[in-house]
Amino acid sequence: MVTPKNREAAIHDPTLPKELVFRSRCSIARSLELIGDKWTLLIIRDLMWHGKDTFQALQRSEERIPTNILASRLKKLIALGLVEKTAYQERPTRYRYALSAAGKSLEPVLQAMMDWGHQKLSGGFYDPKALDE
Amino acid sequence: MVTPKNREAAIHDPTLPKELVFRSRCSIARSLELIGDKWTLLIIRDLMWHGKDTFQALQRSEERIPTNILASRLKKLIALGLVEKTAYQERPTRYRYALSAAGKSLEPVLQAMMDWGHQKLSGGFYDPKALDE
Repeated sequence: MVTPKNREAAIHDPTLPKELVFRSRCSIARSLELIGDKWTLLIIRDLMWHGKDTFQALQRSEERIPTNILASRLKKLIALGLVEKTAYQERPTRYRYALSAAGKSLEPVLQAMMDWGHQKLSGGFYDPKALDE
Repeated sequence: MVTPKNREAAIHDPTLPKELVFRSRCSIARSLELIGDKWTLLIIRDLMWHGKDTFQALQRSEERIPTNILASRLKKLIALGLVEKTAYQERPTRYRYALSAAGKSLEPVLQAMMDWGHQKLSGGFYDPKALDE
């Protein structure tokens, strides 16, 4: 929810879009507006740690992200400057995705969540190779 | 999405509900199923750091969580064993909310998100007292 008071607290980081306006001044609330959903951090995980760099590779993860959600989250991450998209082939054009420096700086968030899921939810360390057969 | 394969990987932590079934073995994916939304970690923040322990106090945070979302998230957090609810008054009955040990163990996740929001999103350290006038 954007209120006039929140609007005054808009971000100043030049690497992020000017039009990004937050619901509060709290750093946690701001982070959650960018990455607070069930899928965004999984895409960041795959780009960060699992060598996935194409739409197809990202789709093949164990969680089976729906195509439309993957497309919309990548678009959002690119608009936020957290992911970069570059063409690596023409006719047909194919794209590679990679984390920007700002995207890579999310590693401690991934790490903290992984540690918690490992300790409390009996989660393991995801091995993408075992699932790509 | 729950598939038979995921079902086999159901959690073993005795402090969490047996019926909790995850979409993957990944610790991050599992954590996101519990806390991967825009509001849950804000409630945990308020219980952890800001001395808020009643429904009314939680409602008065800067982000103005909608009443129905607060009620449903608290219910879910209690079912997950992350929050405990105790009656502190009768006629009318009033409840206090507090983090369980499992809930408190989310502190490093909050901290990592706060650090990121502080560095990248110009977020500040939320002062609930300034907003409770």
